[in-house]
Amino acid sequence: MTQSAQQMFDLHRDILDQAVGAISSRNFWTPYPESMRKYPEDAVKAAPSRFESLLNQPFTLNSVGSTHHVGGEVSPYGFELGITYNQPSPDELIVAMQVAMRDWRDAGAQARVGVCLEVLSRLNAMSPEIAQAVMHTSGQGPLMAFQAGGPHAQDRGLEAVAYAWQAMAQIPATAQWVKPQGKHDPIVMDKRFHIVPRGISLVVACSTFPTWNTYPGLFASLATGNPVILKPHPGAILPVAMTARVVQQVLEEAGFDPCLVSLVPDTVDAPLTKTLALDPAVKLIDFTGSNTFGDWLIDNATQAQVFAEKAGVNTVIIDSVDNLKAVTANLAFSLSLYSGQMCTTPQAIYVPKNGIETADGHLSFDDVAAALAKAVQAFLSDNDRACTVLGALQSVDTQARIDACRGLGEIVLDSESRKHAQYSDARIHTPLILKVDAAQKATYGEERFGPISFVIATENTAHSIELARDVIREKGAITLGGYTTDEAVAEQFEELAMEVATPLSLNLDGGIFVNQSAAFSDFHATGGNPAANASLCNQAFVASRFVVVQSRRHGQPN
Amino acid sequence: MTQSAQQMFDLHRDILDQAVGAISSRNFWTPYPESMRKYPEDAVKAAPSRFESLLNQPFTLNSVGSTHHVGGEVSPYGFELGITYNQPSPDELIVAMQVAMRDWRDAGAQARVGVCLEVLSRLNAMSPEIAQAVMHTSGQGPLMAFQAGGPHAQDRGLEAVAYAWQAMAQIPATAQWVKPQGKHDPIVMDKRFHIVPRGISLVVACSTFPTWNTYPGLFASLATGNPVILKPHPGAILPVAMTARVVQQVLEEAGFDPCLVSLVPDTVDAPLTKTLALDPAVKLIDFTGSNTFGDWLIDNATQAQVFAEKAGVNTVIIDSVDNLKAVTANLAFSLSLYSGQMCTTPQAIYVPKNGIETADGHLSFDDVAAALAKAVQAFLSDNDRACTVLGALQSVDTQARIDACRGLGEIVLDSESRKHAQYSDARIHTPLILKVDAAQKATYGEERFGPISFVIATENTAHSIELARDVIREKGAITLGGYTTDEAVAEQFEELAMEVATPLSLNLDGGIFVNQSAAFSDFHATGGNPAANASLCNQAFVASRFVVVQSRRHGQPN
Repeated sequence: MTQSAQQMFDLHRDILDQAVGAISSRNFWTPYPESMRKYPEDAVKAAPSRFESLLNQPFTLNSVGSTHHVGGEVSPYGFELGITYNQPSPDELIVAMQVAMRDWRDAGAQARVGVCLEVLSRLNAMSPEIAQAVMHTSGQGPLMAFQAGGPHAQDRGLEAVAYAWQAMAQIPATAQWVKPQGKHDPIVMDKRFHIVPRGISLVVACSTFPTWNTYPGLFASLATGNPVILKPHPGAILPVAMTARVVQQVLEEAGFDPCLVSLVPDTVDAPLTKTLALDPAVKLIDFTGSNTFGDWLIDNATQAQVFAEKAGVNTVIIDSVDNLKAVTANLAFSLSLYSGQMCTTPQAIYVPKNGIETADGHLSFDDVAAALAKAVQAFLSDNDRACTVLGALQSVDTQARIDACRGLGEIVLDSESRKHAQYSDARIHTPLILKVDAAQKATYGEERFGPISFVIATENTAHSIELARDVIREKGAITLGGYTTDEAVAEQFEELAMEVATPLSLNLDGGIFVNQSAAFSDFHATGGNPAANASLCNQAFVASRFVVVQSRRHGQPN
Repeated sequence: MTQSAQQMFDLHRDILDQAVGAISSRNFWTPYPESMRKYPEDAVKAAPSRFESLLNQPFTLNSVGSTHHVGGEVSPYGFELGITYNQPSPDELIVAMQVAMRDWRDAGAQARVGVCLEVLSRLNAMSPEIAQAVMHTSGQGPLMAFQAGGPHAQDRGLEAVAYAWQAMAQIPATAQWVKPQGKHDPIVMDKRFHIVPRGISLVVACSTFPTWNTYPGLFASLATGNPVILKPHPGAILPVAMTARVVQQVLEEAGFDPCLVSLVPDTVDAPLTKTLALDPAVKLIDFTGSNTFGDWLIDNATQAQVFAEKAGVNTVIIDSVDNLKAVTANLAFSLSLYSGQMCTTPQAIYVPKNGIETADGHLSFDDVAAALAKAVQAFLSDNDRACTVLGALQSVDTQARIDACRGLGEIVLDSESRKHAQYSDARIHTPLILKVDAAQKATYGEERFGPISFVIATENTAHSIELARDVIREKGAITLGGYTTDEAVAEQFEELAMEVATPLSLNLDGGIFVNQSAAFSDFHATGGNPAANASLCNQAFVASRFVVVQSRRHGQPN
């Protein structure tokens, strides 16, 4: 191990140990504060101008065999970033990575984990700046871009490092195997065990969470010895490129080839993902995005282990509530946050057609739907707050989808566009809420990405559960919310959650939201339904990223 | 948990803890003695007659929707077993298993592990009887059938249970998550975590190691909550059926539906494996067998996680030796054992064409080849011992392959047939060893299953390493043996082992053989080359067999 990698490991050892403790206890823990006030005021203040200083020029990275530049990001807040990036030659890059992999492998788990922890620490310090890049590619509002793009993404990266460390630490470097032979001398074998990476790891990033959804795969692969190709979404390159730069700097300082983590940007017109994914040297693929492409990867890139987070039909079932106002306020936040562009945003809200019981008496189905609409309206009544919470629509397709969906049911709350005080061309739209009948499964049982949700009239809660089961089994889901004051129904929700392998949030009516998951405690997606074949993070997310190669020879008893 | 499952867990808890310790230390350990003398003399003596009492009649098992019987096993020692087995209706069975899965899931890790440990304990007591069934289906010699089919197979099963337990024990049943809110009250969430099985597990057994290669998948899946369909090879049903009966008995005693582990036998004429493998309910597939079928599963059963052990070109590289006689004696045993029908038997033996250095001076390439042939001849000179070590050829195809391969090179040692003292029709054949040139890669670089090996004349050891690297990268390997007196060359072998992800056995010249791996210490296959995509056993072998489904709700601080 190089001296500096060892120093990095020693420096961050406490954090690592605490992270390993946290993934076992699942208690609250994080080393990366989510409050901007915990970061140096200067860094926070300077972030916008630092971001602006990156615009309209090349962003340079270590790029093997780079032949031309690509770019073309447009902020959902209404301006072109004008940044170009080197596009390495994939063939040359893969050869260079395979050469570099050997030193990275031989450096051992401590060195690799040390580098990863140092990278995360530096990324944390850069959170204000990364937030700007996340905001102006994903369209997230500034606070969310800071939290989800900065500390929360770093949490997920650290979580992956902790799982990787735990898995690798279980393999002893050496062992002496002594087999008794009765009266004769025992047979003694001296053994060595090596952690050997799978090969090239391809991490395909998405446009909505370019860091949060990328860091787990990046750090899980890197810590276990695999070189990583970062293939950003053409619309959200900058946050990934900034990350790659930090990794390359730390790799170089620690004495490793910076090409071990390389950005391979592409364009919508000349996509590279399929070519990269089918390369025989690519053995690991992390992907966040559409079901179509995720399924294509699973079906076609069979030379690789594919970890895919796709889409599903996130579900809320309302059986009964104490305080409908608190419940609808909670749901209003979830439906509004980042204009429903989270992979965790609820879409299908099942409510009995005869209404529900509350602490204030019976309320009709229409009362519930109207209360939800009212809560969203109230929550978004202040335009500044609305713009901050909603953020901007990342894609024009999502904007078009709102229009296309208006006719799918009876409008409970129409989507309206909003004007941002600073960015007049920002694509800002409030949620569209539709009322539909349980029979319209083709309508609400298909993912409608964006601020589009359905309140579905069912026969009763048993029917709601049955419909949710059918839809999630077929289409998947990443989140499931349940509301009931009846513990027996709560157990039915718990059973449903297990049947469809979807995490359950029960009776959320305060400061915790169904679309948010906490690193080190909540498993994001389970990997057990069509929405995702992997969970962020668990043992399975890291265990197959390396193999153990051993040697043995005759030895003498110690 | 049922009381009896809890009792089973408590009864075997010590063994479990020791097994978990062993997979971490990788030291020698086993609870299942490999010496027949450690088993009750009566059981050992009665085994042949107990086996005979099973012949020529139906072998009954709990079989959901069974409509007809199949059978047709023929002992490689030359007689028909005449046993028939119920063939369940796959569709009805899968429905029944899905129903039964819920109780099995809800029973929890301790109950499931308790059942598995009790099954293994009973299988261990039955080792003499199972040995008979293994012998007369696989063709293994009696001692090997006892060890590999009994205690060593049970070791591998226990190892899988230990990994499963370790993985599940890491998930807390509950957690309280307390997030500080500065001066305000913290946010408190009460969480529950459930281990949820993937779904139906299909274990496709092979004809040569019907228990050893089956137990890891069976126990890894069962312990983690998945119902298991055991699909035996049509030629080796009985050992799997005996195993299934024990599992069903223990499941029933513990209060579970015995259909949770069900035998689905088929025939060569009406195979069921593809149908089962493509069933959407089948989420896990363990397979041991041909590359063609293993690759078909990986490419087509994309709804399932496939753990495939296929074939490769097992390799020995001879650079230099101290004592050629000891080395060739060691290799003679490996080439002879079970007539080379192990997935670990060496096939390609690389030797420099200008010969090698030994403690007794330089020896030519032909000297080395002749010494190897002589060692095999000497080892097999006693016909009784030869028959015991060689066992019988499981398949007539293997017998035909020996004839077909005779012309592939210059014969160093011809294969001869042997007469078994007790079984005159036994298919017993000694090893065929051929000399070939390094250029004949198509000849030695293709798996030739059975007692067929090649001594390959290379330019020098560097050339041997290069050829081995190329062949294993393309075709895979499960074992790699290296012989050298030069520590620098030993390090080159170690590097080769890592590059091709194949475990290295260095300078074996005593009582340990390249084709044997020790449970709890040696990882069998790495999963990192074309011969296998999984290792028996490691974390990756169990971690993706279950998902974690959580629930969370607001709570009060403890």
